[in-house]
Amino acid sequence: MAVFAAAPVAGKADDATLLNQAREIFKPLPKDMGVPDLPLTKPRIELGRMLFFDPRFTIDANMSCATCHLPGLYGMDGLAKSIGVRQRPHPRNAPTILNSALNIIHWRGDRESVEDQVIKALASPITNGLPDERAVLDRFARIPDYAPLFKAAFPDDAAPMTMQNMAKAIGAYERTLVTPSPFDAYLAGDVNALSPAARSGLERFMSTGCVACHAGVGVGGSMFGKFGVLEDYWKATGSQTIDKGRFDVTNSPDDLYIFRVPSLRNVAMTAPYFHDGSVAALSEAVRIMARIQLGVTLPDADTQEIVAFLESLTGELPPNFTVPALPPASELPAK
Amino acid sequence: MAVFAAAPVAGKADDATLLNQAREIFKPLPKDMGVPDLPLTKPRIELGRMLFFDPRFTIDANMSCATCHLPGLYGMDGLAKSIGVRQRPHPRNAPTILNSALNIIHWRGDRESVEDQVIKALASPITNGLPDERAVLDRFARIPDYAPLFKAAFPDDAAPMTMQNMAKAIGAYERTLVTPSPFDAYLAGDVNALSPAARSGLERFMSTGCVACHAGVGVGGSMFGKFGVLEDYWKATGSQTIDKGRFDVTNSPDDLYIFRVPSLRNVAMTAPYFHDGSVAALSEAVRIMARIQLGVTLPDADTQEIVAFLESLTGELPPNFTVPALPPASELPAK
Repeated sequence: MAVFAAAPVAGKADDATLLNQAREIFKPLPKDMGVPDLPLTKPRIELGRMLFFDPRFTIDANMSCATCHLPGLYGMDGLAKSIGVRQRPHPRNAPTILNSALNIIHWRGDRESVEDQVIKALASPITNGLPDERAVLDRFARIPDYAPLFKAAFPDDAAPMTMQNMAKAIGAYERTLVTPSPFDAYLAGDVNALSPAARSGLERFMSTGCVACHAGVGVGGSMFGKFGVLEDYWKATGSQTIDKGRFDVTNSPDDLYIFRVPSLRNVAMTAPYFHDGSVAALSEAVRIMARIQLGVTLPDADTQEIVAFLESLTGELPPNFTVPALPPASELPAK
Repeated sequence: MAVFAAAPVAGKADDATLLNQAREIFKPLPKDMGVPDLPLTKPRIELGRMLFFDPRFTIDANMSCATCHLPGLYGMDGLAKSIGVRQRPHPRNAPTILNSALNIIHWRGDRESVEDQVIKALASPITNGLPDERAVLDRFARIPDYAPLFKAAFPDDAAPMTMQNMAKAIGAYERTLVTPSPFDAYLAGDVNALSPAARSGLERFMSTGCVACHAGVGVGGSMFGKFGVLEDYWKATGSQTIDKGRFDVTNSPDDLYIFRVPSLRNVAMTAPYFHDGSVAALSEAVRIMARIQLGVTLPDADTQEIVAFLESLTGELPPNFTVPALPPASELPAK
């Protein structure tokens, strides 16, 4: 990435040059986030969509994935830290579910995939609260219309109603939640998809060094980094507690204060910022990052242009990111 | 209503006769539930839709109207009794928001309108938890995009951002949530919109006397009645507690165990039943009502036909009963 920090992009690079530089660093969103092993079949996506929005699989049957990943708030909840079942506090900020399958999952990277995240969420006393897998699956006894939907989604499985398949279905749905943005149109060649301020901000974003970590299709999301390279992050952010990050997962001193670098897609719609939601304003988050990660004190004008660029990462909400009609509870519990 | 109980509808009335009888008792849904004083303008409906789904106006900013009135569960939450902010228990079953403006509001009728319900919900320690109106309105300081939406929705108001206007906007939105059903098509003349079983059930529903209370456009919802005319309701339903109903509102002995008669529209999708959600199965609810209200022991075949009729009251979810994109939080609190 030093290539770009050294490249002569300060001043007014012409449009074609800027676009070419951007294309070497970033990539447009794919149509979906499917992988060969996890086919995105229509029945699987639709089942996953229902399960994503169905509140009946948590301890009090009143919270679903969508409780913290709201369609109206760009796939997160607007809170510094989410509130789980029975008011149990989540330790970190809920990242948006949008485009999430492209990224390292969770702030500490302790999830292998969106599917793994579903499994662990269903087992979590904070997210779910039910004692075990059996208790989750028992909830299907009162909602018989799910059985044929699992059969259709997993036609080769003799007994398809499993936690693993819940995860595969919800994961399949989540893998469809991509948000093409003006920046993707720009990368496809439509220079005017970005305002002049946003193009200047893109130039600043590259020349300042932000792209050392925030690159690729997610504009971040694909690597780990130390939060607070030059200053303790909690002093800059005013964090109430000191989170040791990945250290608490690996116990390796190298992982102290190491967090997943978040994707910046839809960042303008997903305040507050950082793993603990400690900063409310995007411009403030940009200023802090430049200073404590790169040692750069950004002039206000540059900050505002970078914010204009980041706003161009706001995409359209996916058409299927809406609540489907859910199967009704049955007359009597199934035997 | 005794007219119908006495009418010779037992046996197999012909289709035209049955339809004519039904038309004297029931009415199809209107296009919306607007009233002259509360115009359903587009800006007002759209603002109300946003406020309905926005979780940022409750104490922990994590619950909205839609938390207990979910689109996926036909406008209620599937729980016997809803769970409010900070796990505070609601005393009664959450009725569906669908078609609700047609009905007496709340089980005890202590709400004058859907608008009055919004005001009281925002002031409720269970539903909202914020200390007062000022605390609710303060939440707009961080979401500046609401100001022009209020101005557009209430163009004649000098200072439109009030609790009253929040209620008018949410009420306007709720007044659009109508669910035309096969039964409405039937009332419009399409006899085959109801299955033969549903038509037999309609006949039974009228001849058994259910229509003494469940009549009109809502198939109920427009009057009060004593729950448990012939037996104590709590013995029939297995209720854990004895709710005195409207008595606790009026202190009049005449109101002991008096509740609003619920509309039966979408009843097949809105289990569990009764003011306390004490009965899970619709067929069981039908049997109990026939016995303790009318003194009729329904044969199983009749119960099933009545259930088939009630299923014909399940309507289409309104196209605007989905989560809109919500205004983002601002960079910095507005001054």
